Amino acid sequence: MDHSLIGALSASRAAAQIRTGTLSCEELMLSCLARIAQREPQVGAWQFLDATRALERARAADKLAPQGPLHGIPVGIKDIIDTVDMPTTLGSQIYAKRQPQWDAACVAALRAAGAIVLGKTVSTEFAYFQPGKTRNPHDLLHTPGGSSSGSAAAVADCMVPVALGSQTAASVTRPAAFCGVYGYKASHGEFSLSGIRPFAESLDSLGVLARSVDDIVLMRSVLLGGIPIDHRPLAAPPRLAVCRTAQWSQAEPQAQNALETVVQACRKAGSVVSELELPAQFAGLIDAQKKIMAYEAAHNYVFETTSCPGQLSAAFLALTESGRNVSRHDYASAKCEVELARNILRSLAVDLDAWISPAAIGEAPLATSGTGDPLMSRMWTALQGPSLCVPVGRGAQGLPLAVQLVALAGHDDELLNAGLWVGTLLETA
Amino acid sequence: MDHSLIGALSASRAAAQIRTGTLSCEELMLSCLARIAQREPQVGAWQFLDATRALERARAADKLAPQGPLHGIPVGIKDIIDTVDMPTTLGSQIYAKRQPQWDAACVAALRAAGAIVLGKTVSTEFAYFQPGKTRNPHDLLHTPGGSSSGSAAAVADCMVPVALGSQTAASVTRPAAFCGVYGYKASHGEFSLSGIRPFAESLDSLGVLARSVDDIVLMRSVLLGGIPIDHRPLAAPPRLAVCRTAQWSQAEPQAQNALETVVQACRKAGSVVSELELPAQFAGLIDAQKKIMAYEAAHNYVFETTSCPGQLSAAFLALTESGRNVSRHDYASAKCEVELARNILRSLAVDLDAWISPAAIGEAPLATSGTGDPLMSRMWTALQGPSLCVPVGRGAQGLPLAVQLVALAGHDDELLNAGLWVGTLLETA
Repeated sequence: MDHSLIGALSASRAAAQIRTGTLSCEELMLSCLARIAQREPQVGAWQFLDATRALERARAADKLAPQGPLHGIPVGIKDIIDTVDMPTTLGSQIYAKRQPQWDAACVAALRAAGAIVLGKTVSTEFAYFQPGKTRNPHDLLHTPGGSSSGSAAAVADCMVPVALGSQTAASVTRPAAFCGVYGYKASHGEFSLSGIRPFAESLDSLGVLARSVDDIVLMRSVLLGGIPIDHRPLAAPPRLAVCRTAQWSQAEPQAQNALETVVQACRKAGSVVSELELPAQFAGLIDAQKKIMAYEAAHNYVFETTSCPGQLSAAFLALTESGRNVSRHDYASAKCEVELARNILRSLAVDLDAWISPAAIGEAPLATSGTGDPLMSRMWTALQGPSLCVPVGRGAQGLPLAVQLVALAGHDDELLNAGLWVGTLLETA
Repeated sequence: MDHSLIGALSASRAAAQIRTGTLSCEELMLSCLARIAQREPQVGAWQFLDATRALERARAADKLAPQGPLHGIPVGIKDIIDTVDMPTTLGSQIYAKRQPQWDAACVAALRAAGAIVLGKTVSTEFAYFQPGKTRNPHDLLHTPGGSSSGSAAAVADCMVPVALGSQTAASVTRPAAFCGVYGYKASHGEFSLSGIRPFAESLDSLGVLARSVDDIVLMRSVLLGGIPIDHRPLAAPPRLAVCRTAQWSQAEPQAQNALETVVQACRKAGSVVSELELPAQFAGLIDAQKKIMAYEAAHNYVFETTSCPGQLSAAFLALTESGRNVSRHDYASAKCEVELARNILRSLAVDLDAWISPAAIGEAPLATSGTGDPLMSRMWTALQGPSLCVPVGRGAQGLPLAVQLVALAGHDDELLNAGLWVGTLLETA
């Protein structure tokens, strides 16, 4: 088979072909490695790669009967997630040589299912704003988004079918949107974060970057310990709404158009798509998210800010400084404000499987301007529900546009079922 | 000054004497080291000790003007909490040689306030049930309790004035009760857990073991980033209740008597001490706590259970096995059950500063029987509020008895103000 075709396979299809013997783990790995050899000098998606060992493991996997659902599937792991056999730098020069003594729980779960860790993907510094070396594979002058920059770029560029990311503000959704791939941010608390340094514990969630919703469903099942998830095509269209949010006017017209296109397509396919209007209690949530994030980051990074401030970026120092200036009272108020809104949302959205909302302001900006604005995801991340970034064509500069589906906390299955439906709709449109 | 007297000083008093120049950091450290040299072979409180470096640091501190509130104060750190300059084994042979590349946020905060980390105190395996080498300093045939075994024993035995612990079921309260020291378990989410491997993220909390409530207040202020906390003697007696709980009949008569003694003393001193009766919705909380703990532990320890099960204790393997058998649905139900009870408790206890409840079933059992039963704390830990173990004399075997004060989640200041009042009452009785 043509390697470029193999490299474009989804993890689900590749795994199925490996099971039936029409594809070998070695072929799959070789095609990923060939793509990386060709493109990595420009894209810079990888913080650490172990091509030799990955190939050895693929060959070893070919000698075994497939046991787990990810048998022989190469995966990328965001470099804030610990791996026992590869350095984990957290995107910081402080930890340039850090070698964890364990696998994060999510990595162990992927490996137990047969996945082969190809390497560590570039993260911004501690998954905050200071960019790494990665560029947008669709246009190397542009940012891939952050903080899961390398995971999104590697998946978008067919270097690897799936990769793990994480989100505290918009760190899965934004890079997925900018790179034109699916990005699933799980409900807060949905997956174990053991082996991932906390950034802001009220907000941190694990995520998956992939080129198909099927792959996200598969990864989710594995990350939950291999429980079978019933994701059959829906008998009826999903119960959707559109939520333009108070940030709507800050979205570029082409991002607004992308959203309206999706809404129309869903309506045409039989989903009612009601309007989800957020009441006044949601107005302060973006500020609340910023306060919670800054406060918790300041408390989580006391070691680095007191011991080696000279090795931290100005952006990170400013964040932790601002977090130290958030009073206990203001922090508690921000948490209360979010909890109140979460309770209101629960009744507003009780009859919804998911709602459609902007994923980003627009196309990926130039890399020189940073990793883009997390604006469109801050509120949803604070509310702790799951989200799925869904690519929707290209913008004026030829870069991807996207929307996100969002759901109530704990409704990850409903979200992904809706995502399968919407994804199929858009891909076959 | 007599070293045995220095070693019995609270951290607050020692710090005050260091500030006024009546005690040197070196004298304080030498007295702790002398006590350790004398008693450690029997008590076994320390997993790792660096006496030479601690003494060097104490001498260096004597050359500096005191800057932080813990200047020169020796502290013990539970060995599940990462330290950049000392191994952190998590009480597991798997990590016998593990050296973290950072300080946990709580350790960094203590050091930034001038504390000197004397060493790492023994934890049970991953802070679960498999005991370490530590014995109860009041009777070496008995357990110090777990999982913060070494921290409680070291503080009780005047090896160090204060130590950090952590709690997922009863891992601060039980060892504090068995060793006769104060044990503060913070509200869930109160302090950063960065640098502490998660056991069960819905339950894990940081704790402090100390010989005075003043020290706990001081440590809390430092752990919150040095914010000043106003803990003046209360103008009026605290608003207390007694909550005997559905587990009351499982407390030994002498534990019941200890509680009644405290209630009478509080009433005599002018506190009304109402009765806090828990409605039927609380009946299943102990089972819910067990399910949540097992489910989350199973998901957090995938690496160890898949990569090196032969190095895990039977108790730990059984827990993670049972956790894998808790379904998503049962886990979600258990979390809902706890959340419902938390909401009910908020209205039941709205007028209370704290309530008095049994801290343990009775005196510390023989070390051969394990680390004792966490029964009396499971429900409170699930409800995520803070608790303070308060020693109350001795039992039939000459070992300490205790009660715990418990409060609503987020009411740590109210709890400790009540604790200062109750502690003073009992100490001067």
